[in-house]
Amino acid sequence: MQGGTPLVSRRWVLARRPKGPPVPEDFRLETAEVPAPAEGQMLVRNVYIPVDPGMRNILSAEDPGPGEFRPMELGGTVGYLTVGQVVQSRLDGFVQGDWVTDYLLWQDYALSDGRTARRLADLKLPPHAGLGLLGVPGLSAYFGLVRLGDPEPGETVLVTSAAGAVGSAASQIARIKGCRAVGVAGGAVKCAWLRDELGLDAVIDYKAEADLDAAVATACPGGIDVLFDNVGGGLLDRLIPHMAIHGRIVICGQIAEYGRGFAERAGLKNISHFVPRRLSMEGLFVHDFHEEFDAAIAELQAWALDGRLRSREQVLDGFERLPEAFAGLFRGENFGRVLVKV
Amino acid sequence: MQGGTPLVSRRWVLARRPKGPPVPEDFRLETAEVPAPAEGQMLVRNVYIPVDPGMRNILSAEDPGPGEFRPMELGGTVGYLTVGQVVQSRLDGFVQGDWVTDYLLWQDYALSDGRTARRLADLKLPPHAGLGLLGVPGLSAYFGLVRLGDPEPGETVLVTSAAGAVGSAASQIARIKGCRAVGVAGGAVKCAWLRDELGLDAVIDYKAEADLDAAVATACPGGIDVLFDNVGGGLLDRLIPHMAIHGRIVICGQIAEYGRGFAERAGLKNISHFVPRRLSMEGLFVHDFHEEFDAAIAELQAWALDGRLRSREQVLDGFERLPEAFAGLFRGENFGRVLVKV
Repeated sequence: MQGGTPLVSRRWVLARRPKGPPVPEDFRLETAEVPAPAEGQMLVRNVYIPVDPGMRNILSAEDPGPGEFRPMELGGTVGYLTVGQVVQSRLDGFVQGDWVTDYLLWQDYALSDGRTARRLADLKLPPHAGLGLLGVPGLSAYFGLVRLGDPEPGETVLVTSAAGAVGSAASQIARIKGCRAVGVAGGAVKCAWLRDELGLDAVIDYKAEADLDAAVATACPGGIDVLFDNVGGGLLDRLIPHMAIHGRIVICGQIAEYGRGFAERAGLKNISHFVPRRLSMEGLFVHDFHEEFDAAIAELQAWALDGRLRSREQVLDGFERLPEAFAGLFRGENFGRVLVKV
Repeated sequence: MQGGTPLVSRRWVLARRPKGPPVPEDFRLETAEVPAPAEGQMLVRNVYIPVDPGMRNILSAEDPGPGEFRPMELGGTVGYLTVGQVVQSRLDGFVQGDWVTDYLLWQDYALSDGRTARRLADLKLPPHAGLGLLGVPGLSAYFGLVRLGDPEPGETVLVTSAAGAVGSAASQIARIKGCRAVGVAGGAVKCAWLRDELGLDAVIDYKAEADLDAAVATACPGGIDVLFDNVGGGLLDRLIPHMAIHGRIVICGQIAEYGRGFAERAGLKNISHFVPRRLSMEGLFVHDFHEEFDAAIAELQAWALDGRLRSREQVLDGFERLPEAFAGLFRGENFGRVLVKV
């Protein structure tokens, strides 16, 4: 590439900060020349780019304080972790053709210094599993459920957004751990998949259920021992009265609250149950378990290979579809992990 | 007493269910004859009756579900734990003159079968300490802070309602454990006591502070590692953004929320901080530590005897003052534990 035609890369940048749910017009397509990698860098071609609801956190201007996600700058390239293939490496440990995950963002090509890159070395599943079962979603399900939720065999685990990438993995890991797994999802198709394909013990369609409280009470006759929550807001608040004594709430995601101003948030009003029921609630930050990722990935892959852990990806073709696919997440249109193939 | 004049006991009963903060008119004074103790019972004369904000929980009609406090019946005798002296015992392990704590309620005399009675045997403090430092308030501070909060030396512990019976004990135990103790209380008198008498590292008068957030940030420059909360509602929500990474919130009391209907509650809107800051929140149910009470009481008493743990009681004379004293709690009028001497 050096001395040849400069490499031109498309990229999606933040055109304006979303108000509420993001829309495609919040993003703008640009092109830029990508320089050749310097010593200690590698050039990676993006192959699979996931659309991730958590990215919503960095699009707003509010700077919420220490330890929080920093808002990104207007005009900056958006995106999170992706899966790509090394085109040219001047970096130890990575050679041309390697599959990697890294923060390559929503662009055709990216330079990486390898610090946050992970080689998908012993992968026996397709490379995009590095963004799903064997990536942050699978690891979030694993550490959130096993470490924070810490369920005993026979306990009841309720998972919200159960048909999502994290939720479906958490539901299945609950079953692998000998728990009663109850999934809450929206729509008959997702619910049928959870019940018939993944074998959950009970499934609640929150869109169809006339009496959600009655449905939860029926599905969880002894109450919820572990609530693995990906939704937050009003749904979380409504589930708190269904918690069993000593119940644990794992906060993994809060898609209902992302991008909402303080005044618009539902707020948790059922905190009064925390004392008499001895409830606990904890936020999951999966990167805290970074040193244990390899061992967890090996376990997740083994479960996937023997058919006990399945995932569903929706692979869209075309880099230009990223903003629309991202916006669709906030309308609940996705079914499983949404990936764009570049 | 048998064969003599029947013993007449005054008692306060629930006349109507309070709407919002309780008022004296919610209670009615009655008298009743007390029978002589049967075999396996003892007759106890109430000496110190505390007024306890947690009693508000059982006055409303709502039955909030499994594990929750059951509402008491209209016309029933109100009250919780008290300290009394045994008048006549037909029960092994208790003799006339023994000081005991038990659920003797708001009445002059009570019969007890001893199941929930505790002899104040090795007490080196006045008997009413069995309702304060060496009773449920001291034990709640001890187990809430030491077990649920689990602070390391050098960490910052912020206590709300810090001049109350539980809060002042928690603040001082935080200092004994080598932590920076910050108290939030209302009014100059309470704050001066916390700062000058109990030696807290910083005190915030939430009634006088024009900018509460700035005051908390100044008092807790590294954020709050353990928030020991007795208030709940809007104050708790406002403190969440001040939590340090891996901060723990101990929910001990929620005086701001007791008796509020669902719609009136403030609700916690700052749950968005739980994931990036890795926060946890847990409800304290002190009776779960029942088997460790004796050891904790011995430790609390040792701290009290060597002057490191102090308490402030407001002892009111006169059984007839109970309802007014109880109502006063909800107007923030109390300063330390409020006891009525019968």
